[in-house]
Amino acid sequence: MAKKELLYEGKAKSVYGTDNPDELIAVFRDDITAFNGEKKDQFSGKGVYNATVSAFFFSMLEEKGIKTHFIGMIDERTMLVSKLKMIPLEVIGRNRAAGSLVKKFPFENGQVLNPPLVVTDYKNDERGDPPICDDIIYALGLLTPEELKEVREMALKINKILFEFFDKLGLVFVDFKIEFGRLGDEIVLGDEISMDSMRLWDKETGESFDKDVYRFGKGDVMSAYGRVVEKIEEWKRQNI
Amino acid sequence: MAKKELLYEGKAKSVYGTDNPDELIAVFRDDITAFNGEKKDQFSGKGVYNATVSAFFFSMLEEKGIKTHFIGMIDERTMLVSKLKMIPLEVIGRNRAAGSLVKKFPFENGQVLNPPLVVTDYKNDERGDPPICDDIIYALGLLTPEELKEVREMALKINKILFEFFDKLGLVFVDFKIEFGRLGDEIVLGDEISMDSMRLWDKETGESFDKDVYRFGKGDVMSAYGRVVEKIEEWKRQNI
Ligand SMILES: Nc1ncnc2c1ncn2[C@@H]1O[C@H](COP(=O)(O)OP(=O)(O)OP(=O)(O)O)[C@@H](O)[C@H]1O
Ligand SMILES: Nc1ncnc2c1ncn2[C@@H]1O[C@H](COP(=O)(O)OP(=O)(O)OP(=O)(O)O)[C@@H](O)[C@H]1O
Ligand SMILES: [Mg+2]
Ligand SMILES: [Mg+2]
Repeated sequence: MAKKELLYEGKAKSVYGTDNPDELIAVFRDDITAFNGEKKDQFSGKGVYNATVSAFFFSMLEEKGIKTHFIGMIDERTMLVSKLKMIPLEVIGRNRAAGSLVKKFPFENGQVLNPPLVVTDYKNDERGDPPICDDIIYALGLLTPEELKEVREMALKINKILFEFFDKLGLVFVDFKIEFGRLGDEIVLGDEISMDSMRLWDKETGESFDKDVYRFGKGDVMSAYGRVVEKIEEWKRQNI
Repeated sequence: MAKKELLYEGKAKSVYGTDNPDELIAVFRDDITAFNGEKKDQFSGKGVYNATVSAFFFSMLEEKGIKTHFIGMIDERTMLVSKLKMIPLEVIGRNRAAGSLVKKFPFENGQVLNPPLVVTDYKNDERGDPPICDDIIYALGLLTPEELKEVREMALKINKILFEFFDKLGLVFVDFKIEFGRLGDEIVLGDEISMDSMRLWDKETGESFDKDVYRFGKGDVMSAYGRVVEKIEEWKRQNI
């Protein structure tokens, strides 16, 4: 499948058209940003890591009955996906309190959230991705109440699958951000599932293996991200 | 009922104990603040206006079956109320888009919201009263899902009553903030319902009769607030 015109250059991925109007190509670049673009860097090979992990999880979720945009890999940083009409929401799942939740509300960092939380931000860089409550989602016509319920249920199901998987790797799946889009009448999972879009902590030491390493200068980003890829490869070898 | 120890001095009201451990005295002061306390002033008589309007609406709502903390007036700026265990939420109802909603989301100022929205902020000055979504309300143990449903229904009922009333006065009831608290097993309406806690627009001219006059220096605060009191007095004379 040939890459055609650049449709969108985001902060970490570039999206291209293809010969097929229903399919897109997503290239995972080596760019990394934090704090809504205030901090920026490039790490050679980071795009490959995130593409690899995203592809792995999209395949796993498809097998477990979750519809995703994933079609296949074109090369190690390039993904062929179904073109979605994206819903401008960041759907956030949380198993432990961390990040903005701890800043804004009286939770302890690391506090277990059981049942897990699902909340939403309005995906809009100029407006600073503000938290958005259900009634506002309906008023903006982003989702109907039935659709929001479906999205929340998908998010909880995805959370359960990933939580249990990471647990086997010795990692706590702290929280994550996913995006959904419309494919015909259906709402399917789009975008990515990578170390850029989740928090992962070592079960024993609490060490971070995610974008917090970059955000807060906690160590070497590529070795943290690489460790997650390695753990997944190890798991694959043991589970053929 | 005698005023005893000062229990809490808020930005616009002072709350005192009484001889009865189940009752409090709320004094509506002349202080007015905006932007989380950044802008501050005093207007002589403003407390009386807000107390008068609050008392009027609490009585009206009680008659329509909404439980409130209101017991009676001690003097024209002093209210006797049932002591509540306050729930630290600002419950916000909106019939038209205005204020922060328009800043954060793509609504036009004044856009009709039908059905009306009910959203919530976490009432906490140090944390800047952040918007709080349902799952976080449950996780913090502020309300159960059943209780939140009840609070939302009460807010919608209060909204309907006030919207229809203001409509008769030639005013658009744009939005409002209310607070609830626990009285034994029940959740009842507390705090105030005043020009400080709502937006009111002239139906014809769009002129503001609320704290936006103060926030944005739109004119004389006391004549705006006074106009609302006058309109209510007029209505009372015609509806004895
Ligand atoms: N299947 C899809 N169809 C159409 N658009 C998609 C699909 N999957 C993801 N997208 C969109 O493509 C873009 C991916 O780029 P990227 O994630 O780098 O940018 P961004 O989301 O604007 O920035 P950031 O995620 O850092 O806030 C996003 O806007 C995302 O919503
Ligand atoms: N019936 C009640 N029992 C106990 N506390 C109450 C009751 N009604 C209101 N309160 C509380 O009393 C205080 C009223 O003071 P005031 O509204 O001036 O302060 P504030 O809410 O801290 O400031 P602001 O409303 O400007 O943010 C609030 O904290 C309110 O939640
Ligand atoms: Mg993105
Ligand atoms: Mg108050």
